[in-house]
Amino acid sequence: MYTFKKLQQIVDKHLNNLELNNEPSELYEPIKYILEIGGKRIRPSLVLAAYNLFNDEVENAIQPALALEVFHNFTLLHDDIMDKADLRRNQQTVHKKWGENVAILSGDAMSIKAYELLGNIPEEFLPEVLKAFNITALQVCEGQQLDMNFEGRMDVSVNEYIEMIRLKTSVLIAVCLKIGAIMANATKTDAQKLYDFGLNLGLAFQLQDDYLDAYGDVHVFGKKIGGDIVANKKTFLLTKAFETADEKTTNELKNLISDTDIGEEQKIKDVLAIYNQLNVDKLLKECMESYYDKAIQALESTSVEHDKNYILKEFAGKLMNRES
Amino acid sequence: MYTFKKLQQIVDKHLNNLELNNEPSELYEPIKYILEIGGKRIRPSLVLAAYNLFNDEVENAIQPALALEVFHNFTLLHDDIMDKADLRRNQQTVHKKWGENVAILSGDAMSIKAYELLGNIPEEFLPEVLKAFNITALQVCEGQQLDMNFEGRMDVSVNEYIEMIRLKTSVLIAVCLKIGAIMANATKTDAQKLYDFGLNLGLAFQLQDDYLDAYGDVHVFGKKIGGDIVANKKTFLLTKAFETADEKTTNELKNLISDTDIGEEQKIKDVLAIYNQLNVDKLLKECMESYYDKAIQALESTSVEHDKNYILKEFAGKLMNRES
Repeated sequence: MYTFKKLQQIVDKHLNNLELNNEPSELYEPIKYILEIGGKRIRPSLVLAAYNLFNDEVENAIQPALALEVFHNFTLLHDDIMDKADLRRNQQTVHKKWGENVAILSGDAMSIKAYELLGNIPEEFLPEVLKAFNITALQVCEGQQLDMNFEGRMDVSVNEYIEMIRLKTSVLIAVCLKIGAIMANATKTDAQKLYDFGLNLGLAFQLQDDYLDAYGDVHVFGKKIGGDIVANKKTFLLTKAFETADEKTTNELKNLISDTDIGEEQKIKDVLAIYNQLNVDKLLKECMESYYDKAIQALESTSVEHDKNYILKEFAGKLMNRES
Repeated sequence: MYTFKKLQQIVDKHLNNLELNNEPSELYEPIKYILEIGGKRIRPSLVLAAYNLFNDEVENAIQPALALEVFHNFTLLHDDIMDKADLRRNQQTVHKKWGENVAILSGDAMSIKAYELLGNIPEEFLPEVLKAFNITALQVCEGQQLDMNFEGRMDVSVNEYIEMIRLKTSVLIAVCLKIGAIMANATKTDAQKLYDFGLNLGLAFQLQDDYLDAYGDVHVFGKKIGGDIVANKKTFLLTKAFETADEKTTNELKNLISDTDIGEEQKIKDVLAIYNQLNVDKLLKECMESYYDKAIQALESTSVEHDKNYILKEFAGKLMNRES
């Protein structure tokens, strides 16, 4: 069996050799750029890791693995336009560097490229993999739309928030594991259990993101602490705070959100004080751990010999204990 | 065999019943909207017409037919953002009505929906159809990128222009016929010949578009005559004019293009005078007819009994003789 790190290296090797047309360069340069500026290659490595539970010839699953990484990066590229983000992984975003039109079109080409890679898998697996992929890809769009809808709302419930991150983040991680399993001829039950592992892990992962943004160590986290608070982003912490606060605290929180004169530092400090008073950080940790536990339970309930699960378990543990 | 009109009706019936999620409505309403504002359903009807050359059960090819119509409308939706177009088929464009972010994301969801429809075809045809579709879809993006690149250039050759419309318009029409043939279990040779029919017809169709924009009857054409001239759009007429003009006329044309003070009417009149002097309208007609002839030759060279070709021949003839 391969370590997660080794799987990441295999993915990187193939990504570096990804065949892309050269002309017109305005279309293909941005695709090469966003794939080259990196990322942890978590999704494609999870495809290979799931495959590796059943079969050692992980290169057999490289085409759908690459498809999922290309698709993921396509969503980042278009999300960055919608969010008007200037930076991605500390580099200029594609629309900043080349303009919006190029970013829209090269994103479109990227999503087609993802399907081209999927089309390379053996015919026997294609219908099932394509179906799982399509359902998920639409869900990711739905999640992004919900996220945008939440910007204009003050009454987002915790459940709505969880549903949004399930769609926007978790289903893609889940389907990576499922597709890896399908490619290895795993049973439907095992493929579904690995999907559930990914889904719950994805939820826990996003909650950890929310936590780190508010409570991370600035030196380790790599970006400014409190970014979500400053942007009034609907996170687990904020939606939970609204759900648990009394009237007085609710009003304080609303005032802080609508106060456009308050300094960033002060706003972060005051919102954090309310979070601490309401214990939403602890409630987040509880919720996160509950998803993490469900993930591990799903992983352990497959027909795979238990000692083979350590790669995915180790990966899950690292995700939970990460500080950046 | 079905008339082209009947095939269009079959397509419309299925498009009206297309299954789409309802929530989030911000994502799915724009998709329903752009599919409802119409169009002639040429591409999906061509899928069915090609299928119908070999088999009367045209509903068997409805899934890829719908996929191609949804994909085509996705490209229109995103192209309209890039072109900053306010109107499409005399209705507000999606980005005008709902904003750019919604237009980007609902377009993305539409392209995935196209693949979902493709995924519904029988397993035996899926790999080949998916492959043909993916190659074409990437070419369409390349064509759109070339079209955008041409905006900033004065030295676009006729050959470059033809290559651009081949990619942006013709390959999609061509692949409709090819996919219809594949679905009917046609031989590779017949599928390729039908592809060639569509490719050449698509080129002739776009050249007719260029002609009508400059020489159409305003009462029949349905939009303002000379729009391409006013916008300095690189068309067959303009690129051919530059290729055939002497130095003096070239300079006159360049001056007209860069003249921002000239009135629209005057500009159209002066450019048309140059076109007429250079006979580029006749050169266009010759080029168009040559593509049309190639299309008909390809159609007649398939193994299909010749009297079955009349539906596609009639359709091709109408495209060539249309005035709008």
